[in-house]
Amino acid sequence: MRVPSPSLAETVENVAPPRMNRRQAAKVRTRLKVLDAARALFAERGYDAATIRDIAKGAGMSTGAVFANFQDKAELFETVFSEEMEGLLNDMRTGAAGVEGRVTDRLTAALTAGYHRSLGHLPLMQAMIARSWFQPEDADQRSRAFVGPLVLWIQDLLQAAVGEGELRQDIDQTLLPRMIWDTFISNFRYAAYDGWGVEELTPHVRQQLDLILSSQMARQ
Amino acid sequence: MRVPSPSLAETVENVAPPRMNRRQAAKVRTRLKVLDAARALFAERGYDAATIRDIAKGAGMSTGAVFANFQDKAELFETVFSEEMEGLLNDMRTGAAGVEGRVTDRLTAALTAGYHRSLGHLPLMQAMIARSWFQPEDADQRSRAFVGPLVLWIQDLLQAAVGEGELRQDIDQTLLPRMIWDTFISNFRYAAYDGWGVEELTPHVRQQLDLILSSQMARQ
Repeated sequence: MRVPSPSLAETVENVAPPRMNRRQAAKVRTRLKVLDAARALFAERGYDAATIRDIAKGAGMSTGAVFANFQDKAELFETVFSEEMEGLLNDMRTGAAGVEGRVTDRLTAALTAGYHRSLGHLPLMQAMIARSWFQPEDADQRSRAFVGPLVLWIQDLLQAAVGEGELRQDIDQTLLPRMIWDTFISNFRYAAYDGWGVEELTPHVRQQLDLILSSQMARQ
Repeated sequence: MRVPSPSLAETVENVAPPRMNRRQAAKVRTRLKVLDAARALFAERGYDAATIRDIAKGAGMSTGAVFANFQDKAELFETVFSEEMEGLLNDMRTGAAGVEGRVTDRLTAALTAGYHRSLGHLPLMQAMIARSWFQPEDADQRSRAFVGPLVLWIQDLLQAAVGEGELRQDIDQTLLPRMIWDTFISNFRYAAYDGWGVEELTPHVRQQLDLILSSQMARQ
C-alpha cells in the first residue's frame, strides 16, 4: 500500500522544532528567566508576598520586560502551576509504567514518583497548595484545567482495574479518584513540617490506599 | 459520708467569673473588637495581605491600641485560629453526643456539626487552611497545639469503638485519626469552590468514612 509522502512544508510544520529568529529566541529565554525567578520567589514568600518588582529583580530585568511576557502575577503563577501539574502527570505515568501487580502497587508507584518530583521543590509546592485554598473563583476555575488531567489519570487507572476484574464494577468513579488525589496532596504536610522524605511517604500512602480501596476489591 | 463544704473564697475562685474593674473590662472589649476586625480582614484578604493597620482601622482604633493587646499579626492570627479549633471541638463533641449507632454514624454527626459551624465563615476557614500550608516552622509548631486536641478526640472516639468490639483491636491509632481529620479539611474545597452546603458534605463524608473504616471493622 502506497502512503503518500508528506510535503516538505508539512514535514517542517509537524516534525521540526519551530525555527526562531534571534528576537524570538531572546523572547523565549526572557520568559524562562522570568519563570525561574517567579518559582524561586513564590517558594520563598508565597503568592501574596511575592511582587512582580522582586520577580523582575530576581530575573535581572525591568518590570516592563516581565509585563511584556505575562499579563500579571496571577498569569505568572498559573504558568508555574500548570507546568508543575504537567510534570507531575508525566512523572506519575512513568512511575506506574511497567509496574505489574495490583492497582495499589501501580498507584503507590505513581504517587511515589510524584513525591520524588515535588519534594525537590517542596516550598513551591506548599505555596501552590496554600494558594489553591484562597484564590478568586475565576483563578480556581482555571486551575481545575491543570489538576483535572491528574485526577482523570487516576480515574483511568482505577477503571482499568475494574476492567481487569480487580476492583468492583460499582466503584464510585468520581469520589475515589478525588479522594486519592486529596490524600496525595494532604501528605505533603508531613514532608513540610515533619521532615518526611519519600521513604516515609511511600509506605504511608500505600497504607492509605489500602484503607481506601480494600472494600472496593472484587475478590477479597 | 460527709463532704467538707468549700470555703467562700474557694467558691468564688472556682465558680464565680473573675471580677473586673472598668479598666480591665475596657481592655477585654478592645481585645474582642480587634479579634472581630482581624477575623473579617483575614477572611477577606487572607493572612499575608491583611495588615495590622487595616485591622486597627476595621476595629476603629489606633495600631498602638492593637499592639497593646497583641504582639504581632502572627499572634493575632493564632488567637483567631485557636478559638476556631476550640469551637470546632466543642461542636463536634456536641454533634456526636447522644448519637447511638455505629462509629461512622458518630463520626459523621461530629464532622457534620463541624461543617455546620465553619461554613458560616467559610472564607476565614479557607484563609486558615491556606496559612497552615505556608507558615514558618515555629508557627506550625504552635498551631499543632490547637489542632492536636481535635485529632486526639477522633482517636478517642475510634478507641471507644475498639473497646466496644466494633473496630478491630489492631487499627492504626495514629494514621486513622489524622486521615479522617485531613479528609474533613479537604472537603472544605467543595464548599469553597462548588458551593456545597452541609446537605452535600454530610453524605460525602459518610461515604469517605465508610471507605476508610470498612476494612477496620471487627465484624463484617
